[in-house]
Amino acid sequence: MTDLIDHDVVGDAPLSPAPPLLEVPESRRRSAAEEARTLAATVKVASLATLTEDGDPWASMVTYGAMSDGSPVLYVSTLAEHGRNLHADPRASLVIVADPRGGDPLDSSRVTLAGRVRRPEGDDEEAARAAHIAAIPSAEIYSAFGDFSLFVLEVERVRWVGGYGRMDSADAAAYATAEPDPTAASADGAIAHLNADHADALLEMTRALGGHPDATEAGCVRLDRYGLDLRAATPRGVAAVRVGFAEPVVTADGVRAATVALARRARSV
Amino acid sequence: MTDLIDHDVVGDAPLSPAPPLLEVPESRRRSAAEEARTLAATVKVASLATLTEDGDPWASMVTYGAMSDGSPVLYVSTLAEHGRNLHADPRASLVIVADPRGGDPLDSSRVTLAGRVRRPEGDDEEAARAAHIAAIPSAEIYSAFGDFSLFVLEVERVRWVGGYGRMDSADAAAYATAEPDPTAASADGAIAHLNADHADALLEMTRALGGHPDATEAGCVRLDRYGLDLRAATPRGVAAVRVGFAEPVVTADGVRAATVALARRARSV
Repeated sequence: MTDLIDHDVVGDAPLSPAPPLLEVPESRRRSAAEEARTLAATVKVASLATLTEDGDPWASMVTYGAMSDGSPVLYVSTLAEHGRNLHADPRASLVIVADPRGGDPLDSSRVTLAGRVRRPEGDDEEAARAAHIAAIPSAEIYSAFGDFSLFVLEVERVRWVGGYGRMDSADAAAYATAEPDPTAASADGAIAHLNADHADALLEMTRALGGHPDATEAGCVRLDRYGLDLRAATPRGVAAVRVGFAEPVVTADGVRAATVALARRARSV
Repeated sequence: MTDLIDHDVVGDAPLSPAPPLLEVPESRRRSAAEEARTLAATVKVASLATLTEDGDPWASMVTYGAMSDGSPVLYVSTLAEHGRNLHADPRASLVIVADPRGGDPLDSSRVTLAGRVRRPEGDDEEAARAAHIAAIPSAEIYSAFGDFSLFVLEVERVRWVGGYGRMDSADAAAYATAEPDPTAASADGAIAHLNADHADALLEMTRALGGHPDATEAGCVRLDRYGLDLRAATPRGVAAVRVGFAEPVVTADGVRAATVALARRARSV
């Protein structure tokens, strides 16, 4: 968060957001490793960087599925340049980009994974193939082509950028052991529902739990297993507000109960 | 087109498309260089491959604008790893991917551009900055940050993949001199309009000009300055049909007249 703090005026970021009037407890956020695992688990198309025979970088599009430790599995042809590159040199990097959904792409989440690929064998090969096909069912047919190979990217370095001023790194162990956020797949729908039908509850949370008792309007901009990111209007300007859930959500459909609990807590303050 | 011909059963591609019953004249298609220039002119976000200080590949997301010769212009910070990489080693590659619009991403168009970056100076710098800001207006503010640098990718190699079995390469000269397709930005709207309101005309084209007089239904799947790609139902199976315009379309709004002329020609056969 700190190394680009001077840049938080770029793009749509508020020039000087209104600070909270009341102290609010620090709310947990996803770590860089959790952000990376979440992107790897929900996105299926990425860009691959490999090395040509001259050691030049080569960028290409790939589809992938993630194994249980988050290792991306590629299934590529040696007829394609990236396939030949991986056979000759295992060094590789993958950038996975969240759909900006019409918003500023530089303010959306992406992660670079870097390491080396292995050619899986035996049980490892079966697990890798299953992980790829779970994400990309049409890849089942590649088994019939002799020129297609499975490659598992062993992630050594992780660099996550969440948008303006939101970025952090993670190491291999943190990446392998972090959990993808179970709420990621349903977050967009939940956000739309909260903004369409529960603007009153979001405003109460902002006033009672978010440190902005003078807020006049609030909307949800992001949601994760640990809480809600709200944007609120106040007479002092626009405020970025974080309201944490009492407990992390552990299932895809747990957001509803956690949000209802948050709304009750706001009303009882 | 030839090196992956064995793979045209992958994914949604028809297993054995119905061949035309009548001979049809070869219709011009965009060259690989034209496909690449068209993608570079219409997409604003891409993935960059650079080299770390160890010579490892590093994939990252970037925004870019294209100069008049198609050279992509990046505006990146040395606080970001890709910025440091480019300062230390100019070798770079960019993959630009067309939005698959909900379809199979492996059947959509993408292009890899590879070469070296230069740091533009003087008039070149002004032209590069203007090209970047024309695509990414919010980048105007980067000029205020001392850590942001402009880099122009001098394209040496081009590899275009249009989908299953559609791929070709181009060299630097072909890329620099090719024109972006002026119909690209309006193609989606034109295709939707043709399919919604002119299915009868598409069927007439397929029967009279596309070599499938027994077609029972036809829809437009792609459109470019040289013609229409149609998919038609026949009693012999599904057919992929190409119908060329009499002349290449030279303006963004020229598709309407070219398509009307094609429909008239089909009726007069």
